[in-house]
Amino acid sequence: MLIAAVVISCAAHAGEVLKSPDGNLELTFSLGEKGEPVYSLSYMGKKVILDSQMGFVLKYKNTPGMHKIPFRGPGGPASLFDGFETADVKRSTFDETWTPVWGEESEIRNNYNEMAITLKQKSGKVMIIRFRLYDDGLGFRYEFPMENALTYFKIYEEVTEFALTGDHTAWWIPGDYDTQEYNYTESRLSEVGALLEKARTYNASQSFVPVNSVQTALQMKTDDGLYINIHEAEVVDFPTANLELKADEMKLHVWLTPDAEGVKGRLQAPCKSPWRTVMVTDDARKVLASRLILNLNEPCALDDVSWIHPVKYMGVWWEMITNKSLWSYTNDFPSVQLGKTDYSKAKPHGRHGANNENVRRYIDFAAENGFDALLIEGWNEGWEDWFGCQKDYVFDFVTPYPDFDLPGLNAYAHSKGIRLIMHHETSSSTVNYERHIDKAYDLMNEYGYDAVKSGYVGDIIPYGEHHYSQPIINHYALCIKKAAEKHIMVNAHEAVRPTGLCRTYPNMIGNESAMGTEFRSDINPGHTTILPFTRLQGGPMDYTPGIFEMDMSKLNPRDRSRMRMTICNQLGLYVTFYSPLQMAADLPEHYAPFMDAFQFIKDVAVDWDKSLYLAAEPGAYVVTARHPKLSTLNKSQEGVASLADGKKDALSGAARFVYALGEDATSADLEGAVARDVWYVGGITDESARDITVALDFLQPKVKYEAVIYSDAPDADFETNPQAYTITRKTVNSKSRLNLHMARSGGFAISLREIRK
Amino acid sequence: MLIAAVVISCAAHAGEVLKSPDGNLELTFSLGEKGEPVYSLSYMGKKVILDSQMGFVLKYKNTPGMHKIPFRGPGGPASLFDGFETADVKRSTFDETWTPVWGEESEIRNNYNEMAITLKQKSGKVMIIRFRLYDDGLGFRYEFPMENALTYFKIYEEVTEFALTGDHTAWWIPGDYDTQEYNYTESRLSEVGALLEKARTYNASQSFVPVNSVQTALQMKTDDGLYINIHEAEVVDFPTANLELKADEMKLHVWLTPDAEGVKGRLQAPCKSPWRTVMVTDDARKVLASRLILNLNEPCALDDVSWIHPVKYMGVWWEMITNKSLWSYTNDFPSVQLGKTDYSKAKPHGRHGANNENVRRYIDFAAENGFDALLIEGWNEGWEDWFGCQKDYVFDFVTPYPDFDLPGLNAYAHSKGIRLIMHHETSSSTVNYERHIDKAYDLMNEYGYDAVKSGYVGDIIPYGEHHYSQPIINHYALCIKKAAEKHIMVNAHEAVRPTGLCRTYPNMIGNESAMGTEFRSDINPGHTTILPFTRLQGGPMDYTPGIFEMDMSKLNPRDRSRMRMTICNQLGLYVTFYSPLQMAADLPEHYAPFMDAFQFIKDVAVDWDKSLYLAAEPGAYVVTARHPKLSTLNKSQEGVASLADGKKDALSGAARFVYALGEDATSADLEGAVARDVWYVGGITDESARDITVALDFLQPKVKYEAVIYSDAPDADFETNPQAYTITRKTVNSKSRLNLHMARSGGFAISLREIRK
Repeated sequence: MLIAAVVISCAAHAGEVLKSPDGNLELTFSLGEKGEPVYSLSYMGKKVILDSQMGFVLKYKNTPGMHKIPFRGPGGPASLFDGFETADVKRSTFDETWTPVWGEESEIRNNYNEMAITLKQKSGKVMIIRFRLYDDGLGFRYEFPMENALTYFKIYEEVTEFALTGDHTAWWIPGDYDTQEYNYTESRLSEVGALLEKARTYNASQSFVPVNSVQTALQMKTDDGLYINIHEAEVVDFPTANLELKADEMKLHVWLTPDAEGVKGRLQAPCKSPWRTVMVTDDARKVLASRLILNLNEPCALDDVSWIHPVKYMGVWWEMITNKSLWSYTNDFPSVQLGKTDYSKAKPHGRHGANNENVRRYIDFAAENGFDALLIEGWNEGWEDWFGCQKDYVFDFVTPYPDFDLPGLNAYAHSKGIRLIMHHETSSSTVNYERHIDKAYDLMNEYGYDAVKSGYVGDIIPYGEHHYSQPIINHYALCIKKAAEKHIMVNAHEAVRPTGLCRTYPNMIGNESAMGTEFRSDINPGHTTILPFTRLQGGPMDYTPGIFEMDMSKLNPRDRSRMRMTICNQLGLYVTFYSPLQMAADLPEHYAPFMDAFQFIKDVAVDWDKSLYLAAEPGAYVVTARHPKLSTLNKSQEGVASLADGKKDALSGAARFVYALGEDATSADLEGAVARDVWYVGGITDESARDITVALDFLQPKVKYEAVIYSDAPDADFETNPQAYTITRKTVNSKSRLNLHMARSGGFAISLREIRK
Repeated sequence: MLIAAVVISCAAHAGEVLKSPDGNLELTFSLGEKGEPVYSLSYMGKKVILDSQMGFVLKYKNTPGMHKIPFRGPGGPASLFDGFETADVKRSTFDETWTPVWGEESEIRNNYNEMAITLKQKSGKVMIIRFRLYDDGLGFRYEFPMENALTYFKIYEEVTEFALTGDHTAWWIPGDYDTQEYNYTESRLSEVGALLEKARTYNASQSFVPVNSVQTALQMKTDDGLYINIHEAEVVDFPTANLELKADEMKLHVWLTPDAEGVKGRLQAPCKSPWRTVMVTDDARKVLASRLILNLNEPCALDDVSWIHPVKYMGVWWEMITNKSLWSYTNDFPSVQLGKTDYSKAKPHGRHGANNENVRRYIDFAAENGFDALLIEGWNEGWEDWFGCQKDYVFDFVTPYPDFDLPGLNAYAHSKGIRLIMHHETSSSTVNYERHIDKAYDLMNEYGYDAVKSGYVGDIIPYGEHHYSQPIINHYALCIKKAAEKHIMVNAHEAVRPTGLCRTYPNMIGNESAMGTEFRSDINPGHTTILPFTRLQGGPMDYTPGIFEMDMSKLNPRDRSRMRMTICNQLGLYVTFYSPLQMAADLPEHYAPFMDAFQFIKDVAVDWDKSLYLAAEPGAYVVTARHPKLSTLNKSQEGVASLADGKKDALSGAARFVYALGEDATSADLEGAVARDVWYVGGITDESARDITVALDFLQPKVKYEAVIYSDAPDADFETNPQAYTITRKTVNSKSRLNLHMARSGGFAISLREIRK
């Protein structure tokens, strides 16, 4: 028995090797002398991740089922990190191409080599480590089969390490259990500890991780020019991870979010951990092109996805964010008791944004400019004391303020081809939201809302839970599933950062889950050049771009701050940031003086069959070209056709279709017309001005295109002259090269449309 | 300003006095030198409660709204206990008689003198202390009006004290945040500390209060023979209290249950605390006759109560409790995943209690013996791993096991005049229960269940919450209100002990919330002589009496324990314990050999228009006489009439009506017949045998009654001969006196029925 154990141990110690399909990445797995699982990763023969520990420390006292496990020493009751022997090794190869419901491209290839290693302890605890090696990175997860000495168990700490080869440059935000709304810091890993305090800016709910740590996704760059990205995929029924940085050893270590009792995961076999991922590329553009996180998620779980569609929208929102108007209705009440407080007799304070007249004004503007939808916040009773009180029964999600005529406004919007987007601010009481969600969704169905923006501002109720702890991760999932049953698309703000779940539930059309436009002047120049490498790896972000008025005093005289980017930077975001849900966030009156620049927002598509990452460097610049998806344009076409027929309750989305069709098309051409070939290009830069040359070699050869180029004016500058731009029209072809200037924190946008004879 | 303050302070210091309607109780309120509210209570000129502090310590850091309060020193940010001045004193008198939907008597007088003292701190914090003084005790509560420097605030600790006059004898259970399922200890207060450890017997969920403490209701007796009972009434949106015992000072002090973040109450003005109560009587029988707790609750909140009715029921339950059969269906699964685990293909283990055949057997027996209803536990999927795992998605409350034909069994039961009682074991995941409760109640409505037994076994999810913390108190209330909307009566087990809320929500027909019959041989003799003084003060208890087979090995050969009472003790409980929901808990086959004794359970009523407490001493004996309420009997009559007409889906409840009508009545007499005058008397004793004489002077004068006397046999004894009884019939009148013998842990029961010419 001892000999056999030694033999197996030796055999395992020798290591199992797995190569990526192109052979560039090589993973090694072995068991150490105490039976501890260890992996490492090489790229082109050079180590990227040194020998790193794997597994979990269990909470073993008071863990039901753990009394079955008497074995101590390596493989003892608390150990899922040593005392293992290899019971089985399974290898396989997978190669398929799948079609996302929406996305950056119409087809995604999912090609990996897999190795599943079954580990067993003498006590009977079984853990499978499943490795998937892609050309652009590694994913591995822990699985616990039902045949196991473990049934119910609790995680005290995850052991998983990423032992790095040097003091890489990193783009990071501080570890936190409740918010990811931070600016990124660029520094050497060794500097993180010293910079952490400064990086922890204020948030309405925040819980600092009690060790030096950063959040997933972490983008790093080695001195050799390799881009390493550590993230997680498919976080389901499991807490979200931070990465503890042991700077002395240059090791990162998974640090999970604890629940209200300090448990970092309650598991029931059979079950699986999320994927731990290490992306490795030799070019920053390949990071943006990677589909690693999506590929590691499960295929679409919905039978019918016909009701899911991209959305370009405006909102009665920015005016509240900037304090020009308010979410609340009255100053009459020191505090609100829903169902008891009588708003019908309250004196309005006169600054309520979501009033009938103002909402109609937005509907008119959105309809005239071919948008699909309008978000309205502050429509429902309770906003007088919603914030900071950890109030449980804060909203009922069904009772409008007296000056918000919900049926009437929906009818008016639908008559103009606009859908209203519902808003559910939970104030982070998931308890209360779950008590009302069914009726709230039913109300949406009744009036034809098909999308909701939900919010999780403030500390979580149940008390002691965190935005990223397992019970709250499960809450978000519950909402997505309920919404799918009722054909509702969800855009959750302040919820956990997505980890590719939109592949499985494509009604998850948006998330904020990072510092977005609402942070205004706090946003550092260059912020948006980092997000595509980090936050956007897990799924689209409702960044809410499109701010044209940077001077906040124009909205609120007491606010002397200025947003730190140019108008062309904002236009560039519509192409550099992928989202099937894109907002034009500013006010109609702020677009009015700049309707020629606004034209790009009207024209740009929001769903793509091809995306090209022309130039990129995290924290510096991103230039992207995208080709719209015809099927999505067709959906807009349906909307236009319905409008043309005088039908009510139709989707609009007219503008981007009209652009692709050509403005000279007659209404008779609308139905069945084939769009012209169209491309869009966008670029953004950080606080440095840059000149860049864009080769248009992606265009169809021998075809002429009209290019409309929206560019920072020569004297544009985010601090001194953010609204200065030039619009140039020229005829181009696939051999053309465009020289473009980006001001400091500036950018550019280009529309390219086939010229027909 | 200083002078004015001194004047007010002096005036307040002089004290405000309030007397009970009969003048026997006198309350004094004053402000101390630092402006601290102080009260005391006297009975017939002798102090019962010495000068005692009042108010709260607030959690003031991170308390929204508290930043408004700059004042420090007495009345500082954390203080709701000093720095007060009296702003207003209002006095009033109240006297009404109200009619409970069900209860121990058909009319209850609510007569008190009230004094409401408005206290104000310089910082603007306002607190009203409202005193209500009854002839049998004091209630006071704290109120926070909306006009207040406080809006949202958190309680760090309640200050309320009860300073006692001596080292009284007390009947107590140890302080706990999660269970009240303990045997009572009788001791001097000074002995509590030393006895606490021993008193803390095991429970599936328990959290010891970290100080010397006992639970409400606390029954005490002074050496002068006064009975003092400290309790709470109307615990709504507030945590439940324990009583910390400061033995050196002989002071009790309210110690609230903290939530998962350690907060002992989150309040939003306007709001109120529960009532704190001190009952004072010179006779133990008056404690049982007191309606103090009910009177302090709000009147009925339901418009329609016609659907609420008393229930005498049996259950497929005791056989699982005793391990004769099981709640679960199969041994195939190490763990269950609802919706994934396929029971239809599982091999039954053959010991599932809730199978069609067995349930039909119970229906037959219950119908034959005139019961109203049958409870069935273990009917739904998930029982294989429901316990001790803190499993969140443990039950869906709608999916029956393959061998439980829910529609068929309901149809069968209804055809025999029996309703099935639904069972919802939440496994203490209130999160999961709230996710499914609407559909679960809808299923009940669909099949004609009108009552549910809910259970809260194990530790609470949300993690870190307690059975008695504010969020979970609110959960129980939510369920009661939802149930009322759907005309469902609720009997919650392991939920918080009731505090008179059944007055407001009379669909709360039962609670366990104390050590009940399920604890079998662990129950001390005499336990049931204490509960009417403590647990039952807050509302009825589903004690589940009626065990005839005390030898547990008859049900489970491996269990050598024996229940510690006689059959006649069990019969006595049907009268000494008030509940509109009464069970006959034992198995049909255990009743079969003793059908002559079982006749009393069949005959006894469960709702009363008059109750007389003939003899009582806590921990020793209780003898009660009750007169049934005719309106309730009429409901049974309707059931009988429906059955006579061959109608389906009718309530039965036949037996107690048949008894009142007389067995010689023909079926033609059923409709419209007037019942004879009937009384029931019950007695129970502790581990001491007792002889007692019962004077029947409560009977109508000059009317003859037939008495059926169920009495412990002369050689009966709970240890050696628990099943020995005698049944004697004699003719009696209002001048008769019955001499009765109660064996050790024995009792008796008497039916008295008018003899017609």
